[in-house]
Amino acid sequence: MGHLFRIRQLRRKLTRAGLQGLLITHLPDLRYLSGFTGSSAALAVTRRAIRLFTDGRYTAQAAEEVKAAQVEIVSGGPAVAALTWLAAQPGVDTAGFDPARTTVADLTRWKAALPSRLRRAFLIPLAAPLVEALRMVKDADELALMSEAALVGCTLFDHMLGFIRPGLRELDVAAELEYQARKRGAEGMSFETIVASGTRSALPHGRATTALLPRKGFVTLDFGIILGGYCSDMTRTVYLGRPRTKERASYEAVLQAQQAGVEAVRPGASCGEVDEAARSVLRRAGLAEAFSHSTGHGVGLEIHESPRVGAGQKARLVPGMVITIEPGVYLVGEFGIRIEDMVAVTATGGQVLTPAPKALIEL
Amino acid sequence: MGHLFRIRQLRRKLTRAGLQGLLITHLPDLRYLSGFTGSSAALAVTRRAIRLFTDGRYTAQAAEEVKAAQVEIVSGGPAVAALTWLAAQPGVDTAGFDPARTTVADLTRWKAALPSRLRRAFLIPLAAPLVEALRMVKDADELALMSEAALVGCTLFDHMLGFIRPGLRELDVAAELEYQARKRGAEGMSFETIVASGTRSALPHGRATTALLPRKGFVTLDFGIILGGYCSDMTRTVYLGRPRTKERASYEAVLQAQQAGVEAVRPGASCGEVDEAARSVLRRAGLAEAFSHSTGHGVGLEIHESPRVGAGQKARLVPGMVITIEPGVYLVGEFGIRIEDMVAVTATGGQVLTPAPKALIEL
Repeated sequence: MGHLFRIRQLRRKLTRAGLQGLLITHLPDLRYLSGFTGSSAALAVTRRAIRLFTDGRYTAQAAEEVKAAQVEIVSGGPAVAALTWLAAQPGVDTAGFDPARTTVADLTRWKAALPSRLRRAFLIPLAAPLVEALRMVKDADELALMSEAALVGCTLFDHMLGFIRPGLRELDVAAELEYQARKRGAEGMSFETIVASGTRSALPHGRATTALLPRKGFVTLDFGIILGGYCSDMTRTVYLGRPRTKERASYEAVLQAQQAGVEAVRPGASCGEVDEAARSVLRRAGLAEAFSHSTGHGVGLEIHESPRVGAGQKARLVPGMVITIEPGVYLVGEFGIRIEDMVAVTATGGQVLTPAPKALIEL
Repeated sequence: MGHLFRIRQLRRKLTRAGLQGLLITHLPDLRYLSGFTGSSAALAVTRRAIRLFTDGRYTAQAAEEVKAAQVEIVSGGPAVAALTWLAAQPGVDTAGFDPARTTVADLTRWKAALPSRLRRAFLIPLAAPLVEALRMVKDADELALMSEAALVGCTLFDHMLGFIRPGLRELDVAAELEYQARKRGAEGMSFETIVASGTRSALPHGRATTALLPRKGFVTLDFGIILGGYCSDMTRTVYLGRPRTKERASYEAVLQAQQAGVEAVRPGASCGEVDEAARSVLRRAGLAEAFSHSTGHGVGLEIHESPRVGAGQKARLVPGMVITIEPGVYLVGEFGIRIEDMVAVTATGGQVLTPAPKALIEL
């Protein structure tokens, strides 16, 4: 992974923000910049130096993983050690931190650890996250990993088509899916697997329960795996039995909305335009109210990251971004449908990373 | 679950802290007080009223789950809605919030949403978390659930004894364990399953990898399941083949340390005393340096919660607390061993919730 390149880009952003230093404690940011995968560390960045602080449990691991930064093993908290180091660097009078990733208690502790003359003005909350902005745009290595993770997701869906049948518990479906994911090399699941069947498919966040798959009705599978630290995310909704006219029409509306969203993905389009492309299809079908969430989100080292693909979002798509397109329709007491792909923004449009079938499958 | 009783206890703590209101956004705290299991909500508590704020996705779920609080569905952020409601309650001039669960960005947003006359003094950071303090002491319903979760963990370990053999990938071991957990009703795993074999057993946090189980060497399994929202946690280390003298002696030392820790559990003992009971055994065996972490931690709705069972910790055990006792020895490049039980503090001592065999098992 091009850690040195990422660090160089970050320094350019630091300079533009008028900061001499940066304190990073959010683990996905840290992993992105240094490769470190442990659970406790802080990273200090100045215009000249970069140093990772962690504890003795990670001595061997940090030496193996971290090539682009110096490593210092500390016995107290790594964030305070990183901050103390930053404050001692010549020419470093300010250090940014991410207020969205720092608790009030952390900030209080950090300030108390600074020399009193630095307590008021040394730490500067970033107006916008710097590392997360870099992470939005994936490089070739990241895209290769994410594409592989997404394809494993597709083979899992294919496997599940042969497994799903009326009378199984939703939990058994989730168990089989997660077991097969592990067998295919997943380090874990990106999030708690959603298996929502029958009227439960109307719950956008229907985690698998002991409910039995019905003889007749929709089953929504929303799941993702982690590969090399990167998340995949996809949703398909299938039908057990033969759907009624209303069910079939609703599915077609969601599918058209999803395809319209995918087609709207191109460099320069705003996230709000992509959302509107999907949403307007459902609005015309009289289903505006039934689509109660955003069209999608960025995905990468975290399952939800920037950009948000929602109504009115002004951020513009750039080649290398990976977003989900996942409109849905939820009719409480009746049924729900969601279809979701991961889409990479290319130089000219969007490339679907999850090419599993989307036409309505009746099982 | 006794939500009304918990709310009454919380109000007593509020009064003692001199606060008229409390804003709760940490989801496990919210679930503990109200039963709500959704992923986005805030709870506002005054001495007279309690109200849960969530969004339209959770209308049906909140109505079903929440009996002890009023529910209000809001379209903006639930925390700001809860805060605005608190500020409008007659006689409520201050509201506590948990600085360890609130980001700097959240607090900035919250203050901006308050009338300007309240911005300086309305929100008070709690000196110590109030709800987490209640959560430390489990009631009978919680103990029953946790005991059940722990026993499922024991049956999983028993199953794995028949599954583990040289040449399997660590990932396959994790896959089988998690699959069987789901089959036994687990809602999910408490944390990423640890399968660390051969020299990798010397990593305290050795997540399962593609490494193959050796013909000869230790295998550490550290895992937990979630049942009714509550976490279990246990570790066993087994041996493939016949252990060398040093390996056997190290195992015996860890086992004795672990038993000494368990025996030190009783009401009134400090967490530091329990840690020292285990640690002193390893110190006498010349393994003080090799035991590089704390002896244990509280467990409940979260896999790590109060109290911390570490050196010098002054908090005293109280009947109803559930803690782990998990000393380990890690010799980098050689091997590692950890043994962990969940122990409930009773009126007279400690009850082990994970009665799986601990004598060295050779497979």
